[in-house]
Amino acid sequence: MKKIPTCKELQRTMCAQYCISFDDVQKAHVNIQDYIHLTPVLTSSILNQVAGRNLFFKCELFQKTGSFKIRGALNAIKVLISSTLEGKPKAVVTHSSGNHGQALTYAAKLEGIPAYIVVPQTAPNCKKLAIQAYGASIVYSEPSDESREKVTKRLMEETEGIMVHPNQEPAVIAGQGTIALEVLNQVPLVDALVVPVGGGGMAAGIAITIKALKPNVKVYAAEPLNADDCYQSKLKGELTPNLHPPETIADGVKSSIGLNTWPIIRDLVDDVFIVTEDEIKFATQLVWERMKLLIEPTAGVGVAAVLSQNFQTVSPEVKNICIVLSGGNVDLTSLTWVKEAERPTPYQFVSV
Amino acid sequence: MKKIPTCKELQRTMCAQYCISFDDVQKAHVNIQDYIHLTPVLTSSILNQVAGRNLFFKCELFQKTGSFKIRGALNAIKVLISSTLEGKPKAVVTHSSGNHGQALTYAAKLEGIPAYIVVPQTAPNCKKLAIQAYGASIVYSEPSDESREKVTKRLMEETEGIMVHPNQEPAVIAGQGTIALEVLNQVPLVDALVVPVGGGGMAAGIAITIKALKPNVKVYAAEPLNADDCYQSKLKGELTPNLHPPETIADGVKSSIGLNTWPIIRDLVDDVFIVTEDEIKFATQLVWERMKLLIEPTAGVGVAAVLSQNFQTVSPEVKNICIVLSGGNVDLTSLTWVKEAERPTPYQFVSV
Repeated sequence: MKKIPTCKELQRTMCAQYCISFDDVQKAHVNIQDYIHLTPVLTSSILNQVAGRNLFFKCELFQKTGSFKIRGALNAIKVLISSTLEGKPKAVVTHSSGNHGQALTYAAKLEGIPAYIVVPQTAPNCKKLAIQAYGASIVYSEPSDESREKVTKRLMEETEGIMVHPNQEPAVIAGQGTIALEVLNQVPLVDALVVPVGGGGMAAGIAITIKALKPNVKVYAAEPLNADDCYQSKLKGELTPNLHPPETIADGVKSSIGLNTWPIIRDLVDDVFIVTEDEIKFATQLVWERMKLLIEPTAGVGVAAVLSQNFQTVSPEVKNICIVLSGGNVDLTSLTWVKEAERPTPYQFVSV
Repeated sequence: MKKIPTCKELQRTMCAQYCISFDDVQKAHVNIQDYIHLTPVLTSSILNQVAGRNLFFKCELFQKTGSFKIRGALNAIKVLISSTLEGKPKAVVTHSSGNHGQALTYAAKLEGIPAYIVVPQTAPNCKKLAIQAYGASIVYSEPSDESREKVTKRLMEETEGIMVHPNQEPAVIAGQGTIALEVLNQVPLVDALVVPVGGGGMAAGIAITIKALKPNVKVYAAEPLNADDCYQSKLKGELTPNLHPPETIADGVKSSIGLNTWPIIRDLVDDVFIVTEDEIKFATQLVWERMKLLIEPTAGVGVAAVLSQNFQTVSPEVKNICIVLSGGNVDLTSLTWVKEAERPTPYQFVSV
């Protein structure tokens, strides 16, 4: 296990080593704080009982646009504006049809910048409608990576638009890191943060922040077994993307971690916990039923990790755990899986 | 329209006129405050935009047992204990298989009192499971009013148990009134409260409290068109129960108002707004999608009322409106209706 560098060591080396430094997170905080919600941290005695630890839920499902992605998207727009000679970019482009697409559109709209989102023709209708509702222009590609890249490139040329990558763009990573600044204020005695990991923007931004300010606080990534590139990468010590497009109900973490997020995750994320689809479904439904919070299954990944068998190996001294409930953009018409989620027997509990 | 009595007039006459006085609500507050959550009041800029007013959502879905019903149930148990010579009653009995049943069981368990709930054999399995999970004994009846009454009566004799009526028991009504005490503190500039009405326990308790403390603040009841006994009663000036068991998705407000709640509602509730099933479904889904709060459709009735055409007739001076989100006990396996809920065209909106 790699030794975690001390605060001072980090401050000396982080700028050189990684695509962002803690300073970038602080600047991001200044850039975005007037435009986003300071989301509440909620607790649940039932969930504490089930987990056997004190859980704190950072409610990014209540964030503008329904997920934490607005933090990174807005910071990226602000950084682009401050670095564009003409005052602001002519357009922004991305190819996320999920939360980042919606967030980028919202952020661009605040600044009067047109947003173009490349979407595969086969994407679910509800996602297309959501993007249109936020005011973006949809441009269709074939459902292949090649077609997506080609259409995105053509679009950037035609619109003179700038690509804002959902998780490898440094300004996006810095924006997501602001979650950790808030958590340290809201839960001063926090021992660990648990963060769902897809492309790793949030995990990296949070790790940079936590290890700069409170290096003893753990940062755990949580990942579906069916999309376990982060787990495999940490295991092998080298970036190991998912071989095939993963099949998981946690659609926000299907992406693999990338060149910018990997070094940070490699060095500063303390551990990765993988969870099955059934564990994700159970945890998501538990939060719905017991906390009445309509999280998306991606947010359930972090909860599932803390309830998993493997998490029992974490020292009991790691008592106060903050789980980032990353978003709440659920497609309500696709809830057929609810019936499937069986309750694992250890979680038969009553409420007093 | 009956003139609303002044604060002083009320204090003089309420004890005699009604089954509870404001003093009972204050005592209920003392009885229960250490055992319940002070639930938060949330806001949503999108919902404000849709409604054209400032909406404040009193989140009783976050309350212990998932609904406001714990307030009344707990107060009833406390009042029973203080009035029982032997120290506490031998058992409590009720025939609500919904939120009151769960709440009464929870409250009884806190005091070590056995709870018996009469449930029709035909009740959905999920309700039976929920009651059992809270630790009550289920006693089955045939699915008719006669059988229910007979079984309840036999059970009370056998267990020497005391019936706690879900909405006509005075201690229950006083307990529900404590919501209004909190709202007046949390939203000092509130102009109106909107309350779903079934048996009328919450509406009556809140009306007693509001008209005692701030008689100019409006109290509006919200009711499904398919269960409009409160609306009909106010229209005719006499208690007019639903003729047939009503069919509505808002299963928490199928009961009719009764002899104890009617006089209070008649005199102190300012108006009743009725809403269609589609309006309830739309409003519920809107809160889910936009606020990420998993309310039950009964709680959507109040939201639907504020968004209804009829509510446009309410003076624009009634600006700050607090809607009580009464509960969040949704049967997640029965969400097939979500697909049916079409968006009424006036509510096509974007989010900036």
